[in-house]
Formats: sequence, C-alpha cells, structure tokens
Amino acid sequence: MRSVVVAVDAMGGDNAPAVEVAAAVEAARRWGMTIILVGDAERIAQQLQHHAIEGLPLQIHHASEVVTMEDAASDAVRKKKDSSIRVAFELVRQNQAHAVVSAGNSGATMAAGMFVVRRIAGIERPAIATIIPTMKGQSLILDVGGNVDCRPSHLQHFALMGDVYARHVMGRVRPSIGLLSNGSEEKKGNDLTRETHQRLKTQPLNYIGYVEGRDLYSGAVDVVVCDGFVGNVVLKVSEGLAESIGQMLRGELRSRWRSRLGYLLAKPAFDAFKKRVDYAEYGGAPLLGICATAMICHGGSNVKAVTNAIHQAAESVRASVNQELMRQLDCLGQTETVQLAAL
Amino acid sequence: MRSVVVAVDAMGGDNAPAVEVAAAVEAARRWGMTIILVGDAERIAQQLQHHAIEGLPLQIHHASEVVTMEDAASDAVRKKKDSSIRVAFELVRQNQAHAVVSAGNSGATMAAGMFVVRRIAGIERPAIATIIPTMKGQSLILDVGGNVDCRPSHLQHFALMGDVYARHVMGRVRPSIGLLSNGSEEKKGNDLTRETHQRLKTQPLNYIGYVEGRDLYSGAVDVVVCDGFVGNVVLKVSEGLAESIGQMLRGELRSRWRSRLGYLLAKPAFDAFKKRVDYAEYGGAPLLGICATAMICHGGSNVKAVTNAIHQAAESVRASVNQELMRQLDCLGQTETVQLAAL
Repeated sequence: MRSVVVAVDAMGGDNAPAVEVAAAVEAARRWGMTIILVGDAERIAQQLQHHAIEGLPLQIHHASEVVTMEDAASDAVRKKKDSSIRVAFELVRQNQAHAVVSAGNSGATMAAGMFVVRRIAGIERPAIATIIPTMKGQSLILDVGGNVDCRPSHLQHFALMGDVYARHVMGRVRPSIGLLSNGSEEKKGNDLTRETHQRLKTQPLNYIGYVEGRDLYSGAVDVVVCDGFVGNVVLKVSEGLAESIGQMLRGELRSRWRSRLGYLLAKPAFDAFKKRVDYAEYGGAPLLGICATAMICHGGSNVKAVTNAIHQAAESVRASVNQELMRQLDCLGQTETVQLAAL
Repeated sequence: MRSVVVAVDAMGGDNAPAVEVAAAVEAARRWGMTIILVGDAERIAQQLQHHAIEGLPLQIHHASEVVTMEDAASDAVRKKKDSSIRVAFELVRQNQAHAVVSAGNSGATMAAGMFVVRRIAGIERPAIATIIPTMKGQSLILDVGGNVDCRPSHLQHFALMGDVYARHVMGRVRPSIGLLSNGSEEKKGNDLTRETHQRLKTQPLNYIGYVEGRDLYSGAVDVVVCDGFVGNVVLKVSEGLAESIGQMLRGELRSRWRSRLGYLLAKPAFDAFKKRVDYAEYGGAPLLGICATAMICHGGSNVKAVTNAIHQAAESVRASVNQELMRQLDCLGQTETVQLAAL
C-alpha cells in the first residue's frame, strides 16, 4: 500500500484555517502521511508561513467556497459546489486521497460525502460514531447526529458498522454490542428499539441486548447503538454535565482556604483526570457507511484534536474499515469496492 | 384546609419497609402531616418499634400484596388488587389521603394511579417529572420514563404540566420552557419535536423553543420537555457519568501522596458538592396528570430521600397543583375537580 493521503478541509472549524494548518503540519511531521489542505489557497499558504514545513509531505488544493455552520447540510451539495468540504471528497472520488478530515458543519460533511462518494451498497444511512471514555477504557457510540428519525434497518446497519470499527480500529476481538434503551429488560424500549432488538438477535454479532444510560460510562459494552437524535442528546448532555460538575467543584474548592490548598496539592491528579476525559485526545468522530474514510471534528477543535483525527483517519484507512464492512455486507462484487481497491 | 394526609407505599423500595417507616416517622415529626403507612401491617408495626412515635400522626393500613420490580406495570392493576401501591391510591380515591409516595416499581405506580384515580380530563398521558440540579439552581425535566412512544399532543401536555408545577411548587414566576432537541435551530429536531414545536408556539407558555443537551445542566430553562424514552436515557446517562467522574477523580487523587493530602484538605468542599448534586436532597419525582398528588422515589432511596419526597408531596397538595392544572385546561366543571375539591 502506498503512503496514506488525507484531505483536510482547511476551512471548516471555528478557527480555520489556522488550527487545520497547524494540525496538518504536526501530523505530517509525526506520522509522515501526505496531507492535502483543501480551501482558500492564499490563506492556507499564509498560515503555512508560521511553520517549519521544509520536506514535509504537505500540499494545497484550492477551493473557492466555504460551507458555514449556518448553511443547510444540502448547501454543500446544491449551492456551494466548490466548497472545501465537497472538493475534499472529490479528491477521494478521483483517487487522489484516501480520507477526509473536517471540523466544519457535520451535516454538510455527511451530505457531501453521500453525494460525492456515495453510500456503501447495503448501508441505508451513514452514521457518525464517537469514542467515549469509560471506566474500562473506551467505547464507541453511534449514531450521534446524522439520522434523527431512524427505522430498525438503520440501527441494524449502525450495529454492523460499529462492530467492524471496534474490531479493526479499536482492536476489540469480539466487540460486545448494546442497544441503548430505557431499561435492560426485553419488555422495555420503544417501538424502534423493540423491532431493532428482534433484528439484532439474528445478526452474526456479539449482541448482548438492551443497555441503559448508566451503562454507557461504566463501559458495559464496546459499541452502543442508538438513533442520531438520542445519541446527539446523550453526548451533549454528557459534555454539559461534565462541564457543570467541573465548575461546581471548582467553585466549592475555591470557597474555602483549606480546600484551595488541597486543590493546589491535588492539581496533578485533576490534570491527569482532565486528560483522561478530554475529547481532544480522541480527535474526531468517524463518519461510517460512505465509500471513503472520513473524520468529523468539533467545530471548536484545537490543534491536538485535529492532529489526532488525521492520525485516526490514516489508521482507519490502514485497517481497511470500509473493505471489511463491505465484506461483512457480502457486497464485494459491487462498484464501490473496485473504486476503493484501486487506491 | 385540613392537615395534609400522605399515603406512603411502605413496601415499594429496595429496603422496604424499614426505609419507608423511618422516613414516615421523620416527616411526621418535622412537618406534622398525617401519614398512612400502607402494606404488611405486621412488618410495618415491627419497624415502628424501632422508633419513638408517641403522639405522632402515623397510621397503618394493611395491604396483603406487593408489586415487585419484576412485575409488569399492569400487574398492579390486574393481578395484585390488594397491592400496597394500589391500595395507597384507593385511599386517595376514597378521600382518606391527599397524596401517594412510593419507592416501588414506577411503571406500576403510574398504572395504578391511572386506573384508580384516573387521568385529569384533557391530559392524554401522565408524566414523571424530575428535578435536576443546575448551575443556576434547579430545573424540571419531563417525561423521564412514563411514555416511551409519544405524540406531539403528549409533549404539549407535558409542557403545560411542567409550567404549572414550576409556578406553583418551584416558585417560578413565568417559567421558561424548552423542548429538548439535537440543536437549537428551528430546522433541527426529529418528526416528533418539529410538530411539537409548532404546537407549543401557540400555547400560553413562556416557550423559548429548542434546547440542546448541553443546556440541561447550565439551567438555560426552568422546564425541559422530552419524551419518556429520551428523558429516561438522559437521566441515567447523567447518573452514570457523575458516578464515573467521581470514581475516576477519586482514583487519580489516591494514586499520588500529594494529591491524597490535597483530597483530605479539600474534603469539606467535595462533601458540599456531593450534597448539591445528591438526588436524595430532592426526594422524589412528581407523577403529574392524574387526579392525585403522587411522588415516585428511586428504588434504592435512603431515608432522607423518602422523607423529602413526603415533604414535597405535602407541598404539592398545599400548592393545589392539580386544581391549577385543571384551571389551565379549562376543565373546572369536570367530575375530577369535584372529587379533589372535596378534600
């Protein structure tokens, strides 16, 4: 296999292109993958001047438009045909890159991916997955925002994709899969989970049934499956709660001199803890189910997060996640496979 | 108004009837409300022997059956007609009590309530609401488990009930109401939230539109409305995450001697924080929409939690929450009103 090429949407994040350019430089330096920075060539070149890039495998590919957070997801497809996110996927379609990384509008990233490189045959809806820190290490949860109204077949595909990702990228031998519900007993759940539950029982997966909200961070399963509305709410509630707990705790600790001293003494432990739950450590959220490797980062991602997402993208390419998924789907004879295999 | 009478399901919780009896004694002593302990008379009397109850307004009402956590919700209605939870509601129906408190099977409590005292006319589905601690104080979220598959009209009623509870029990003058969604923009949401959003805009409420998961603990709104599946997942994810953060933090703090000393010094602050987020401080979750005041407690509730729930129940009765709700619903001419007014 040739060296991995990652197309980075340089215009996506809240602090683009500064963060994206710095991350590309850092990733190219550390891991040696080729990175194509896609976006306003002039502004990207300007940012590159702040870095020592001699000899690094960095390229610029100009794109004249930017999809903003305010744009509808479909604008990336219909209106802004020369947008950085769409052009990044075009590079994959034209076999010039293996993967896309973007900290831009996640709906637009999903729409552009589906339109330009298409869905993997057999997958009805792509999903955005996210790695969360648990008491036991890490788990994967999907979908977290792509699909707000799901059918059982969608959730079934999410489970299949989560299984492949957990095996080939996260290194789990036989990942346990749980369906997020309002209780662990079979009689619990809503119409959607109940039908999905019946379907998942028949799949060649290590499906253990319903898991509850409290099982998420205990690390009860390797892969948590839910619809994108629930997944998005769960992630955002978690972020908000973690932040609130941190703030309340800091407030309490500062309100007493003795606690203040205690806090200073315990600071290394707090920092270690912070690192453990810092999303930047995990980088991006894999967009699964399209004929390209793609990582979506928070709009507010820092350099470390985007750097790690680029690394994660390269790892996914090396692990042949999509080929493995297609093998699972018994779709190896399809056109998409030919395209990917050509890389 | 006569003194408030609370019927406590003495057999519901994981440590029943010891916890329920201790809580009833404590509540009667502190606030003077009359408490009817419903359940196995012999076991209740046995527990009462451990307390100094001379002169306290405590009564025992025998019920021969118990609905367990394993029973289906409908069993409280169909099979176990002399169960403590059903008999507790019968006492309200017979004007012998104003409110019910139970730490038992919450589905069964809801079913028994609906069957024995009926829904409030105009409310299609009762809801379980929960008070959560936020950066600004407290918010109410509903539904958190009663209704897993909701229609827009259900969520509309949840908003009305949340508004009344926030005004009359939580003391909010013009409570802000938010609909939980996967983004704050109007184009976000799923089929259910989008139609509910259109309905809520026309209601005489301080409805501010969609709120995101991250707005929950920041205290962005007084009342958060969602379906019971999402609400249950959100609460359980929150509990699990708070517990995991606590455990991870304690682990980090113990792993270094300096941090250990720091932790000891900061312990009063940790304890103050714990008290702030301790669900026991809030007691129970009000079951809204039936013709009785009812509080549902965690199965694992301690004495403090049940004591506070009894207090909360009495406060709800004094605040005439159900009468206010019926006034809102323009249902004052209906039979249910007559029954409640007779108390």
